[in-house]
Amino acid sequence: MERKKGAEPAHKTTFAAEDEPSDDLLWGINAVWEALQQDAGGGISEIFIQQGKGGPRLQQIIDLGKERAIPVRFVDAARMRVPRHCRHQGVVARHSEARLLPLDLLLDGVAADESTKAPRILALDSIQDPRNLGSILRSALAAGFSRVIMTKDRSVPVTGTVARTSAGAVAHLQLCQVVNLTDTLNTLKERGFWIFGAVAEADAATIYSTDFSGPICLVIGSEGKGIRPLVRKQCDVLVTIPMQGSFNSLNASVAAAVVMFEIARRSI
Amino acid sequence: MERKKGAEPAHKTTFAAEDEPSDDLLWGINAVWEALQQDAGGGISEIFIQQGKGGPRLQQIIDLGKERAIPVRFVDAARMRVPRHCRHQGVVARHSEARLLPLDLLLDGVAADESTKAPRILALDSIQDPRNLGSILRSALAAGFSRVIMTKDRSVPVTGTVARTSAGAVAHLQLCQVVNLTDTLNTLKERGFWIFGAVAEADAATIYSTDFSGPICLVIGSEGKGIRPLVRKQCDVLVTIPMQGSFNSLNASVAAAVVMFEIARRSI
Repeated sequence: MERKKGAEPAHKTTFAAEDEPSDDLLWGINAVWEALQQDAGGGISEIFIQQGKGGPRLQQIIDLGKERAIPVRFVDAARMRVPRHCRHQGVVARHSEARLLPLDLLLDGVAADESTKAPRILALDSIQDPRNLGSILRSALAAGFSRVIMTKDRSVPVTGTVARTSAGAVAHLQLCQVVNLTDTLNTLKERGFWIFGAVAEADAATIYSTDFSGPICLVIGSEGKGIRPLVRKQCDVLVTIPMQGSFNSLNASVAAAVVMFEIARRSI
Repeated sequence: MERKKGAEPAHKTTFAAEDEPSDDLLWGINAVWEALQQDAGGGISEIFIQQGKGGPRLQQIIDLGKERAIPVRFVDAARMRVPRHCRHQGVVARHSEARLLPLDLLLDGVAADESTKAPRILALDSIQDPRNLGSILRSALAAGFSRVIMTKDRSVPVTGTVARTSAGAVAHLQLCQVVNLTDTLNTLKERGFWIFGAVAEADAATIYSTDFSGPICLVIGSEGKGIRPLVRKQCDVLVTIPMQGSFNSLNASVAAAVVMFEIARRSI
């Protein structure tokens, strides 16, 4: 993941209120608290607290931030650098990009993970909208897909917007970017995974009668184009969500969540 | 639903490219096509086609627009008044706000509807984010909740942004706004409905073991605050989505979809 060089020097600690926030900011009590509780403070490098704001949950953030040696700065309302009208609840944090694992480390982690005999991996093919990606990552964690493989090209990087939309889930997930998803799915097959591709096609298998047992990888495509043809060819089964009437269209992040929670339901 | 008077005269047909689009615009081939197929052209009053764009699907829109006596205007790219970088695919439509039914008409429709013995109504308590509302409405239609009751106050109106995010679903749904949702839920109970409130609380009943048979109304609260206390008191059962580990947080529109599709799954 490359950052635009010189776009924002790391030492910059004063700023003006702007409509478009820097993309490495995280705000809101829940999002900041979730990130902060992770190893190494979830990549948070600086916390801004609005002067005059208080309460037990803000205090918890301040205390944990200090404990983790993260600078906590108290600034006035006009200097909380977030979009107008957004509810930051008195706390904004500067957040570094997500730490990404190499594929082999992620897969070694799966092999060593004794908490489950049926590991679930989510593979995202060319998701380009940061809000969709954030929402999918949030749902993935809640549905037990703790490992996520993303394509490197034609995908949005895991920016601050993604982290915010994920409500801090990025800090809990094992994330990996791969150049060639087709090859990666082949590697997963060699390791015993079944590959399921989610599609919006009436003739695909319904998710409600599909056997999702054992190690699985669920592939989600982009909202506009779905799963790319070569990636699709690697899928063992194409699955779909049965819908009512003639309206068979769901938001990409909603469709991903419905499929993931159907898979999670089976193991309850 | 009131419009800001004088904000945009109805006769205004020329405009400059702007970052913030007027809120009564709809764009993209799917969204415009879905709306256009409805009675009275789904409330579309004007269609803009980008000069130089073509193809069978755009042509279908042009033909159906003309058939429905909706003005179709060909404009150059710079005058397609949508946000930069958005993919309008060469078509933008001016869309009037959703037509809303009075509650008694909506309920009479339920009583007269012989297509199902188990009608499903979605009740939205104070959803304030237009994208969340649009996404929820899109999922509602796909999951068979074709009637939606919304609170009038503290809720976003069904604007163009909502219609766009719903991918045209608003044109297929029966929508109703009520001043007092508590009273409305009481009325629904008198008509034989069971009221289910979706909450993010571990001690609520899991959606997977809840009996959703018969006429039901599912209540969804706002992302920040959930269902308001007085509305919550009217719920017969509070239900929740079991989640993995300690992370029990889902985007409001995702949570709504997961619950609605679980209910839909039972009737397949």
